[in-house]
Amino acid sequence: MGGTAEFDLIQRIRQRAATRDDVVLGIGDDAALLLPPPGQQLVVAMDTLNAGVHFPAETAPADIGWKALAVNLSDLAAMGATPAWCTLSLSLPRSDATWVDAFLDGFLGLAQSHGVALVGGDTTRGPLSVSVTVHGFVAPGRALRRDAAQPGDEIWVTGTLGDAAGALAQWRTAAEAAAGDGPADPRKAAPGADGGPATVASTALRHRLDRPMPCLAAGHALAGLAHAAVDISDGLLADLGHVLHASGVGATVELALLPTSAALRTAFADNAARWPLQAAGGDDYELCFTAPPEAHAAVMEALAASHTVGGVIGRIDAAPGLRVLAPDGRAWAPPRAGYEHFGLAAD
Amino acid sequence: MGGTAEFDLIQRIRQRAATRDDVVLGIGDDAALLLPPPGQQLVVAMDTLNAGVHFPAETAPADIGWKALAVNLSDLAAMGATPAWCTLSLSLPRSDATWVDAFLDGFLGLAQSHGVALVGGDTTRGPLSVSVTVHGFVAPGRALRRDAAQPGDEIWVTGTLGDAAGALAQWRTAAEAAAGDGPADPRKAAPGADGGPATVASTALRHRLDRPMPCLAAGHALAGLAHAAVDISDGLLADLGHVLHASGVGATVELALLPTSAALRTAFADNAARWPLQAAGGDDYELCFTAPPEAHAAVMEALAASHTVGGVIGRIDAAPGLRVLAPDGRAWAPPRAGYEHFGLAAD
Repeated sequence: MGGTAEFDLIQRIRQRAATRDDVVLGIGDDAALLLPPPGQQLVVAMDTLNAGVHFPAETAPADIGWKALAVNLSDLAAMGATPAWCTLSLSLPRSDATWVDAFLDGFLGLAQSHGVALVGGDTTRGPLSVSVTVHGFVAPGRALRRDAAQPGDEIWVTGTLGDAAGALAQWRTAAEAAAGDGPADPRKAAPGADGGPATVASTALRHRLDRPMPCLAAGHALAGLAHAAVDISDGLLADLGHVLHASGVGATVELALLPTSAALRTAFADNAARWPLQAAGGDDYELCFTAPPEAHAAVMEALAASHTVGGVIGRIDAAPGLRVLAPDGRAWAPPRAGYEHFGLAAD
Repeated sequence: MGGTAEFDLIQRIRQRAATRDDVVLGIGDDAALLLPPPGQQLVVAMDTLNAGVHFPAETAPADIGWKALAVNLSDLAAMGATPAWCTLSLSLPRSDATWVDAFLDGFLGLAQSHGVALVGGDTTRGPLSVSVTVHGFVAPGRALRRDAAQPGDEIWVTGTLGDAAGALAQWRTAAEAAAGDGPADPRKAAPGADGGPATVASTALRHRLDRPMPCLAAGHALAGLAHAAVDISDGLLADLGHVLHASGVGATVELALLPTSAALRTAFADNAARWPLQAAGGDDYELCFTAPPEAHAAVMEALAASHTVGGVIGRIDAAPGLRVLAPDGRAWAPPRAGYEHFGLAAD
């Protein structure tokens, strides 16, 4: 960005950022001065979103701002932490106050709804990219780690799976259909743009992709109760795989138990099309966690108290490996492993 | 990056990262778990370096790694903080283990020399960019803030000024000369590439640009002693300007007092060419701080104890404005304000 333009943008951000009593010094110095609460562990996560990789370049700036913070808060949720502060590094091709204001609408809107103060960072010139670091707290011994799953644990997920991947699949289809006819507008070009049920479903799915809700209340309620947890950013099988690897265990998951939204079922009625989205599609930012069967009722209560829907999708096994069963009991595997975000920009 | 490639890179980074006793959980979970020391303030800074903006794209990966951490540690130095932990978000056009290993040589080399543990972050696919967040501590009331300069304070700087800007000016000249003859190699094309004094000087300047040394020991020694401090990243006048703005004061600086390296004097003998580099050139990462005249001897002792050279370059005035005086006593201003880093990539 360079001296003056950066200074102006930072002043703009500073004027809009809320503060907290535990912020001694926020935006505007070389670094922030903060007061961690005594006796708590500090929980820190950092994630970057790049245009064309983690979101389509034409995404509304408010949605980019929201999502950049949401994916980070989701990491704190997966630890059972309570968020407090964040820093933001925003790279923009040029200084654009209108864009930044819209970006902040999304970013600070989500921050304020969780009492998170933006305390520092920088603005630079470069390809559109957003890096965020979030800080929170958790009481010693209560953090939800990836390495704590135990054989016999039930495997839970919150919310519904595959909605964001469904929106992405629709976006790809629309973008490919529009190729040669000028820039794609996935909202207009989405299947069934006739105001009917398919349009409503597409809009609902796209909202899940653009405005993920970090499961902070659920994570906090589960801290000290669940064994292991991870947020579903790269896809259920990949993220659960990290838990299995870290814990030295295996798992069995049943496709019939994966929670499915009405919107996803409307847009992808065929199991063969829908299951890969639910099992391997990323960007859901739901929690996947494990807990002993004897804690089942307590988990249900914790989820209800945090106004979160959740259900069991499988169990942790002592034997290594991740087994996915179709409703007929046969082993199932997705067409390809992992989740490459916006693959159109790949390679 | 996408699931598997990212996971492999993270494993690679994890294997090489050192740890500390106050790291409960480092790289490999959704977030790091850390133990802040009781009674200390947490100090957090975040800065991003983009290829083609903050460093030439052909910069050696080890230098990029070093510098990305150095500019962040410099922010902690300017607060008088002791560093502890960092997180790293690395965007790469493609997964390249050789590049990452070289990058880590620089990044972790500097981290380990200051006892800093890399505890988290992410790797993503995108244009080459490095975001770093650093965490440190300072005792309450001892942080060096920008808003604490007092009229009558002496203005100090550490080290020498203008070396990095001199290297950048030479790089620009070489790149422009080489334009049309294939990619520029500024090291070979630097003026006086004959092994003589000019070559030695160019190499010394380039080292200052590529391998800045954060003034952590000096910042720590000055905490509780100096009034205000800032690190010189955007140029002396711009950064001192931030202190004056935040403190509601003015200043007078004498060009004749600006500390000058032998290398810079060799490469830029003419005052008219050198002064703008020293007064307005960025990337030095020296400290500029203010302290009352009665603390002069104590400041000298603190600098000596931290093996840091420093000197007075002016004084803080009650009257607003920043006055720069040439050796003949006349007002001087640089040809243009601010510092745009690698301006070749601009617009």
